[in-house]
Amino acid sequence: MISTAVTLFRREGYAATSWRHLVEVAGTPWGSAYHHFPGGKEQLGTTAIAAAADGVSATVRRAFERSDSAEAAIAWWFGKAGQALVNSDYRDGCPVATVALEAHDSPALAEACQSAFAGWHSQLAGLLHEHGYPVDAAAELAVAIVNNFEGALLLSRVRRSTEPLDLAAGHVATLLGTAA
Amino acid sequence: MISTAVTLFRREGYAATSWRHLVEVAGTPWGSAYHHFPGGKEQLGTTAIAAAADGVSATVRRAFERSDSAEAAIAWWFGKAGQALVNSDYRDGCPVATVALEAHDSPALAEACQSAFAGWHSQLAGLLHEHGYPVDAAAELAVAIVNNFEGALLLSRVRRSTEPLDLAAGHVATLLGTAA
Repeated sequence: MISTAVTLFRREGYAATSWRHLVEVAGTPWGSAYHHFPGGKEQLGTTAIAAAADGVSATVRRAFERSDSAEAAIAWWFGKAGQALVNSDYRDGCPVATVALEAHDSPALAEACQSAFAGWHSQLAGLLHEHGYPVDAAAELAVAIVNNFEGALLLSRVRRSTEPLDLAAGHVATLLGTAA
Repeated sequence: MISTAVTLFRREGYAATSWRHLVEVAGTPWGSAYHHFPGGKEQLGTTAIAAAADGVSATVRRAFERSDSAEAAIAWWFGKAGQALVNSDYRDGCPVATVALEAHDSPALAEACQSAFAGWHSQLAGLLHEHGYPVDAAAELAVAIVNNFEGALLLSRVRRSTEPLDLAAGHVATLLGTAA
C-alpha cells in the first residue's frame, strides 16, 4: 500500500488519489487497509512521504559512495532522476513535492514533507562536509542542491525533457567549485 | 473568476478545487460562469495558468527595469516572491508549479504549464542577453534561474522560511558572475 501510495501521489497528486482507489490498486483487503492505517489516507500519506524520503536518501548515499567527487555524485543522482522520468513517460516526479504543494491544510502531511526536505538537507550537508566543505558552506550548498533538484525535476517533467536536470547538475557543479 | 482560480490553485491545488467552489468563491452567477468558460474547470484552469504566467513575467520585467544588474534583478524578484509567501502565511506559492504537478492527465493544462515555463525561459534569456551574456549562456542561465526559483519557492513554502529563496538569489548571482 505504501509503494502504491508513493506511485499514485507522485503521478496524480494527493488530492486526486482517493482512499478507495489506493486500496483497490494496492489490492489490499479493506479490513486490513483500515487495520494498518486507521487514520486512512492522511496516515498512509505521511507514511508514504517518509518512505519516499528514505528512498531519495538511499539514492543520495549510493551516489556519494560510488563517486570520487561531490560533483560526480550530484550528476549521477540527477541523472538517475532523469532516467526515472523518461522510464515513466515523464510521470514519476518527486512525490514529496507534489504532496507538499497540496498539503497545506493537513498539518500532519505538511510536517512529513518538512521532515523529508530537512532530512535531505542535513544528509547532503554532512556528505559535503566529509568532502572538505566547511560546515556553513556545506549547509548552504545543500540548500542549493535541493532547490536545483526540485526545480529541475519539475521543469523536466513539464517540458518532457531531461535538459533542466542535466543543466542543473552542471550549475550545482559550478556552485560546488566556486565554494571549494 | 480567473484571479479566484489563480488564488485557489496556488493555495489548495487544482484537483482539490472544485468548479462549484470556484464559482461560489468568485461570486459569479452560474449562467455567466458557463457562458465564459463552457469548458468548465479545465478551460478556466488553462486561462488561469496563462494569467499567472503573465503576472510572473510582469514582475520579472519590473525587476530588470529597476535594477542595474541581472543579479540585483533576480534578488528583487526572489525577494518579492518571498514577501508574497510571508504575507499569505506561506500559502501563495507558484500556481503554475502546483497545477503542473497535478495536471498530467489533461493535455490542455499540461500545455498551458509548458507554455508558462517556456515564456519565462525565453523572457529571461532575452533579458540576460541584453545584459551582455552570449545567447547560449543566457539560455542556460535562464534555465538555472527558473530551476532555482521553482525549487526555492517550494522549499520556502514547506519550511515556512524565506531562507531557501534568499540563498537561491545568491546562488544565481554566483552562476551569473561565473558566466560573465
